[in-house]
Amino acid sequence: MKKKIVEGRILVLLLLSAATGILSCNNGKEQNRGATEKSSSIIFPKGERITNNNFTGTVYLQSLIESDSLNPNSVGNVTFEPGARSKWHLHPAGQILLVTDGVGYYQEKGQSKKILRKGDVIKCPPNIPHWHGASSDTAFVQVAITGREKGETVWLEAVTNDEYNK
Amino acid sequence: MKKKIVEGRILVLLLLSAATGILSCNNGKEQNRGATEKSSSIIFPKGERITNNNFTGTVYLQSLIESDSLNPNSVGNVTFEPGARSKWHLHPAGQILLVTDGVGYYQEKGQSKKILRKGDVIKCPPNIPHWHGASSDTAFVQVAITGREKGETVWLEAVTNDEYNK
Repeated sequence: MKKKIVEGRILVLLLLSAATGILSCNNGKEQNRGATEKSSSIIFPKGERITNNNFTGTVYLQSLIESDSLNPNSVGNVTFEPGARSKWHLHPAGQILLVTDGVGYYQEKGQSKKILRKGDVIKCPPNIPHWHGASSDTAFVQVAITGREKGETVWLEAVTNDEYNK
Repeated sequence: MKKKIVEGRILVLLLLSAATGILSCNNGKEQNRGATEKSSSIIFPKGERITNNNFTGTVYLQSLIESDSLNPNSVGNVTFEPGARSKWHLHPAGQILLVTDGVGYYQEKGQSKKILRKGDVIKCPPNIPHWHGASSDTAFVQVAITGREKGETVWLEAVTNDEYNK
């Protein structure tokens, strides 16, 4: 009888030990995943929330390079939270997009919506109306290279939910 | 005596269980670290090894965007292995560098060498001789945005070991 109690106690210890091992292991992975997200996704700072009405939803911009008299291009790091997107707009000198993280959308007027993922690049020709933004359930991070030598971005109408979801 | 043997066996099981927990946990972290390196560093493909003599050491180039009649900029992903660097050179329309991984150097003629890390950006003015490359012990990955509207890159002399190490 006494032997059974001792064995029972040790079995409980055994189970607790295994459970602790599993829990601490999971914790390690969670912490690691956190670190991964930080080190993988964030190359450039997220910047400040955009407060003008050229976007729908929550979007952040960090300017990386300003154009000047010698350099016609501005470069910005843009982070769209899930569901966030720009209005339709065009750039008189065109734009290049480099996708650094997440899942997003890009659409030119009259074309179907493209899904963009980390590593994708887009060359948007001058004066072609387009919009870009995050997918509905995943944030999206892009570096935008915008020629400023032929004038500033022209902002058009908002992207409707129908257009966004199509 | 029999009780002690049983307890001894269970103690061995207990220790084995704890050890297995620790080992499997470490394995998890190792795998996770591997995934981190892959997912963090590689946004764009490494591309092909550069075989011309404009570089010292091992350098890879993946073209991301070609310039055309509407878009004056080319964009390339450049990976320098440790110690590798460009020759001195200049761009008639300037260049923008976005550092996406590793540790590298950038120097303009007459200025001191700068150390570059993930997240740093450089605006290199037109016609200013400069070089860039990896540090001696860490690879370096950059996205280079090069204006092509005023002519092609002009390649100059090699960066000496003295210049590289200074």
